[in-house]
Amino acid sequence: MPDKKAVILSSGGIDSTTTMAMAKAENYAIYSLTFNYGQRHTPELEAAKKVAHYFAAKKHLVISIDLRSIGGSALTDDIDVPKGRDDHAIRYGIPVTYVPARNTIFLSYALAWAEVLQASDIFIGVNSIDYSGYPDCRPEFIAAYERLANLATKAAVEGKVIMKIKTPLISMTKADIIKKGIELGVDYSLTHSCYDPSLEGKACGLCDSCILRKKGFREAAIPDPTHYVT
Amino acid sequence: MPDKKAVILSSGGIDSTTTMAMAKAENYAIYSLTFNYGQRHTPELEAAKKVAHYFAAKKHLVISIDLRSIGGSALTDDIDVPKGRDDHAIRYGIPVTYVPARNTIFLSYALAWAEVLQASDIFIGVNSIDYSGYPDCRPEFIAAYERLANLATKAAVEGKVIMKIKTPLISMTKADIIKKGIELGVDYSLTHSCYDPSLEGKACGLCDSCILRKKGFREAAIPDPTHYVT
Repeated sequence: MPDKKAVILSSGGIDSTTTMAMAKAENYAIYSLTFNYGQRHTPELEAAKKVAHYFAAKKHLVISIDLRSIGGSALTDDIDVPKGRDDHAIRYGIPVTYVPARNTIFLSYALAWAEVLQASDIFIGVNSIDYSGYPDCRPEFIAAYERLANLATKAAVEGKVIMKIKTPLISMTKADIIKKGIELGVDYSLTHSCYDPSLEGKACGLCDSCILRKKGFREAAIPDPTHYVT
Repeated sequence: MPDKKAVILSSGGIDSTTTMAMAKAENYAIYSLTFNYGQRHTPELEAAKKVAHYFAAKKHLVISIDLRSIGGSALTDDIDVPKGRDDHAIRYGIPVTYVPARNTIFLSYALAWAEVLQASDIFIGVNSIDYSGYPDCRPEFIAAYERLANLATKAAVEGKVIMKIKTPLISMTKADIIKKGIELGVDYSLTHSCYDPSLEGKACGLCDSCILRKKGFREAAIPDPTHYVT
């Protein structure tokens, strides 16, 4: 029986789904937190719901946040999502799909929910190997956030809990993540990665996220269950 | 002519309004940021709008955030707002009006907007003297946030800006804040503090926020322009 609660940031993609599987394997009660931030790829919201159900989450909370009014990203604005980029470009540039302060905002909501739930553990599937372009995916960012979390909440200030930001994927390659997920029984056909899906919800096959996904399955030597347009 | 941009968190109350006046006096271009978080006291949204107009803000952005779904506070839930508490109770307890991780969430949006605006300064009117009950109003919280901000954004990571979280009121009493504001030409009749206003928008006169407001004007020996029920 689960004896501890975890808030898990879930996008319905490979990383957060594998993270949820790992928390489940550690016997956490799962509180799944997903954001509807005006992203173009709403199939990810459907995927997150299916994934939460698959892992018998105690609750799946979808919070609408208003990043469009702030602007600044191809994921929320009318900027073209880049297609067909090579591995080097994906790995070393900060992409136009970067959403300003996204993980900072996501973790802040997770912290608020954790405080209400009296949970001390927040899981986020960030990864600094296969996707180092985002500043808020790096270990030093996470460490600074954890430090902040312990100064930010009533329970932490009163010494009742020590907040932990858990990033089990931080040093794993996409292939390792997929292998770990398969070992833990993840059904990746439930997940969604594409930044620019077709109207029917098919993955484009060409955006950075599709390219990393394909590469991950290929390198893990595991069949990719995704339906790609290309 | 303003040569630098500041994002100012504005609630339409005394503290954030005085903070905005101080930023204006330092020649910042004002970008006013207000949150609609399902608070009971919507007159504060009206006040924030009037204040932004008064200070000729370049933009006044109101972001709706979904704290009700997270719960946990008398400001957003159906918990009674405490009335008639004495100074000691207000000063030393964490009140039920505490909204989980509120300033953490607010600063995260401010950071996102600052990044899009290419602004490096975020002003927040927190105060650790007259209202020490909230963990996320303390100097150590703000310092940790500033550290995080410099690890969280593209511009900071690329070394283009140093993010600063400015808290000009941090060590001021409410009376000093009001005196400073009057000196800078603030019209406090535009502002709103009450947690539990009447249907006509009158201040209750009994909640912690009204008590601190009354005390501030009294101690500053400045007439209080507020219309109180009591």
